[in-house]
Amino acid sequence: MRCLRRLAKYESGEERNVKNICVTLQYDGSRYDGWQKQGNTDNTIQGKLEAMLSKLFEQEIEVHGSGRTDAGVHAVGQTASFAVNTVLGPAKIAEQMNSYLPKDINVVDCKIMDARFHARLNAKRKTYKYRLCTGNVRPVFGRQYVLWHPQELDLAAMKKAAAYLVGEHDFRSFCGNRHMKKSTVREVYEVSFEETVRKEGDAEYPELVISFTGEGFLQNMVRIMVGTLLEVGTGARKPEEMKQILDGKNRELAGAMAPAHGLTLWKVEY
Amino acid sequence: MRCLRRLAKYESGEERNVKNICVTLQYDGSRYDGWQKQGNTDNTIQGKLEAMLSKLFEQEIEVHGSGRTDAGVHAVGQTASFAVNTVLGPAKIAEQMNSYLPKDINVVDCKIMDARFHARLNAKRKTYKYRLCTGNVRPVFGRQYVLWHPQELDLAAMKKAAAYLVGEHDFRSFCGNRHMKKSTVREVYEVSFEETVRKEGDAEYPELVISFTGEGFLQNMVRIMVGTLLEVGTGARKPEEMKQILDGKNRELAGAMAPAHGLTLWKVEY
Repeated sequence: MRCLRRLAKYESGEERNVKNICVTLQYDGSRYDGWQKQGNTDNTIQGKLEAMLSKLFEQEIEVHGSGRTDAGVHAVGQTASFAVNTVLGPAKIAEQMNSYLPKDINVVDCKIMDARFHARLNAKRKTYKYRLCTGNVRPVFGRQYVLWHPQELDLAAMKKAAAYLVGEHDFRSFCGNRHMKKSTVREVYEVSFEETVRKEGDAEYPELVISFTGEGFLQNMVRIMVGTLLEVGTGARKPEEMKQILDGKNRELAGAMAPAHGLTLWKVEY
Repeated sequence: MRCLRRLAKYESGEERNVKNICVTLQYDGSRYDGWQKQGNTDNTIQGKLEAMLSKLFEQEIEVHGSGRTDAGVHAVGQTASFAVNTVLGPAKIAEQMNSYLPKDINVVDCKIMDARFHARLNAKRKTYKYRLCTGNVRPVFGRQYVLWHPQELDLAAMKKAAAYLVGEHDFRSFCGNRHMKKSTVREVYEVSFEETVRKEGDAEYPELVISFTGEGFLQNMVRIMVGTLLEVGTGARKPEEMKQILDGKNRELAGAMAPAHGLTLWKVEY
């Protein structure tokens, strides 16, 4: 019905400028209740975007993200699509959006897509990164984006454990939604570990960054995988337990969920 | 009198463990009213340190910083000295301090110094860095530590202007304290410019970092120099005006003071 009305508008000339836009967004999730809109008490990224766009373009605009990010999780490459009736080109749309967005959200890319493109339905691969500061001294700068974890970690054991997660599995044990009715089978393409040192003046902050690439992730899945890998790293669990955790299909078997602020949605590929 | 009492205590054995400590500090100045203690309504770095140390070591402790930093200015290498009567070694002192300091202040180095060492009186060189994000897109991550300045800057003109500041000059025109009674003569050893690109995922944020090294700086001096250099960079002033500004010895002649949050005290050398 809605489509037919749109078609009629288009034929009448009123909607000839309807564009399907895909934006790449960066946000500091610290002060938000996550991506997904929440009715009235709205303090979400999606909610902020829709309110701003609807006001800016004087039309109701629905924004589709590539997926939800939890409260406190950041993004350097979240994608979102929306249809808008405007004569503006993509560069101007991005500029307008940035001039109205709060300081902790911005648009770094804006493209016109085919009318059928949908940021969630067409997403093929997603990458998340979890940053851990592993030194003895708690970091001051950028502390909002890393988890300080000064205990020693057995990286070899963590890598061994992570290998169990790669491939297509039922990740029910790693799903934060215990009443999930849809399939909990996902394919994880890669889990990789990178050790770096961040310098701030003469002080050095060693970091361990764990990257997860997959076709998609369940609610809280990356944070539960990180929490479980940390339990392996500190010796509280053996790497081989990962198999039993997966096979058990029970959230109780996996480890604690790692804090949100260490996690960043890095990239969405189409 | 106080010294004599201390000496008496020392001879009686009570103060045999008095150590003169120098710590290197990092802090995110965003939520503080600067370095220097301010009586009762105290929300300063010095105030937080003295309160914490006095409680930790159960004795009154006075902390001497290498110098004051303005409200909102950060430090990756501030130094401070204090005398404390303790059997603890420097590593343990740093560890104890860090376990009681708030999340935005930490100790990255701690040394026992000669009894006559004083963090301010013995400082020989200081380096400050001012970070500008010069791209069209406002940065999200680490936005607390850079000034977003999307207007185009004439770097050659800024370098030419900066050359006038190097050397020993009366910097009265660049002094925020208009009633300064002490000498406003200072020697600036170097002003340098570095262009870098910070990457966040696929997005690039070009940065211009201006570093100032000198024997010491007057109140607000670095921020007023930056503000004036930016006016040269945007073409509002000519580089040659710097000479007249210095010669005029009048704060009205120099440019606006750049915002605090772009500035970081980088290093203090002895």
